[in-house]
Amino acid sequence: MAAVVPKAIVFDIFGSVVDWRTSVIEQLTAFGERRGIQADWTELADAWRGEYGPSMDNVRRGRQPFATLDELHRQSLEQLALQRGIAEITPGDLDELTLVWHRLRAWPDSVPGLTRLKSQFIIGPLSNGNVALLVDLAKYAGLPWDVVLGSDVFGHYKPDPETYLGVCRLLRLEPSQVMLAAAHSSDLVAAQSYGLATAFFPRPSEFGDPERAKSSLPGSGTSFDYLGQNITDLAVQLGV
Amino acid sequence: MAAVVPKAIVFDIFGSVVDWRTSVIEQLTAFGERRGIQADWTELADAWRGEYGPSMDNVRRGRQPFATLDELHRQSLEQLALQRGIAEITPGDLDELTLVWHRLRAWPDSVPGLTRLKSQFIIGPLSNGNVALLVDLAKYAGLPWDVVLGSDVFGHYKPDPETYLGVCRLLRLEPSQVMLAAAHSSDLVAAQSYGLATAFFPRPSEFGDPERAKSSLPGSGTSFDYLGQNITDLAVQLGV
Repeated sequence: MAAVVPKAIVFDIFGSVVDWRTSVIEQLTAFGERRGIQADWTELADAWRGEYGPSMDNVRRGRQPFATLDELHRQSLEQLALQRGIAEITPGDLDELTLVWHRLRAWPDSVPGLTRLKSQFIIGPLSNGNVALLVDLAKYAGLPWDVVLGSDVFGHYKPDPETYLGVCRLLRLEPSQVMLAAAHSSDLVAAQSYGLATAFFPRPSEFGDPERAKSSLPGSGTSFDYLGQNITDLAVQLGV
Repeated sequence: MAAVVPKAIVFDIFGSVVDWRTSVIEQLTAFGERRGIQADWTELADAWRGEYGPSMDNVRRGRQPFATLDELHRQSLEQLALQRGIAEITPGDLDELTLVWHRLRAWPDSVPGLTRLKSQFIIGPLSNGNVALLVDLAKYAGLPWDVVLGSDVFGHYKPDPETYLGVCRLLRLEPSQVMLAAAHSSDLVAAQSYGLATAFFPRPSEFGDPERAKSSLPGSGTSFDYLGQNITDLAVQLGV
């Protein structure tokens, strides 16, 4: 597998580089305690993430004009809080809580692995996050990106080709010179269909229950350029 | 003046953060020696930079569709080499020489100053360079950007408003929360007209002869939020 050596390695972010779930649960719980609001914050965090794909699909299928992930996160949370009867959440709270997605912890291997990869490759996110979110996240978690291009640069969400190919275009690289690294097989299959190189590593606790992460594993018939244990292991395989 | 405290500080690059002139002369001279081509490489470097503004104006005024700065640099160099009868330069050489603008030395205060500013502010370029150029330049010169947005993200060159306001939009900040820092007064006057905060610092040797840099100094009637000696001094004035 080791014949593929890209010039740039771009990363899926939520779940792949950062642990969104425990970070969001922790911040929602702290908000509830601070405001004295009772709710099942773990259930809300999972439901909020559950709206992630459907809300972007609304944009991708033209049912809603392009809106940033910050805006989609806010819309989803407003609806979910209403459905659960959490009436104490104000519009100001919605603004504030939307920003919990700007403060997510990196998985332990992410920063060491990215730092090693940065010594030899151009590294950056290839994420559905908007630029402001990704910049805040990088500062919060210490992610040492060379470049930060978000979905709002392209006006599209993955798996639209404008995202994968837009990053290649702006880096002035051929798709084969760019590798997507992600913990989600479906993202890699899409990138591969547009000619990008691919690296998979698992994040078994992304969704809490390891059973739920199994659907992200490579299925039969998939063949990625690299299979790593995590980002640091990917750096080792790439010889840095 | 010190009342203005931005959230993001974006920088003009060529001349302001990096010393394009000595870097380009050095690389052109080395190319000439390697290939045994005689030419006045200093004159060519200055003439090449002389085409910078006019080539972007061709795009800005609709005389040419948007092309990246890499493409404009290549076109200008081809024309200048022809005019000077430097017939030995091949299309492959033009490709190679266009990349000298990806390898420019930072002024001595740039990396220390940016590193300090990064501790408290979002920092990035606001440059006519394209993303690939700016990313290569950052890796070459060690510029510790949080975000890299180039003119090809916006499809516009400064002083078009789409550049100044485009950076604000993608950072989800009001123009007043973003400060342009530059060694060129005209760039700051344009940014100011769109509501951005401004910081000026001089680069007297940008063009070799200090007389030539005088036209970049603030004129009477201009009033910027910060006037610094250089980028490190700007960091001191901002208390970091």
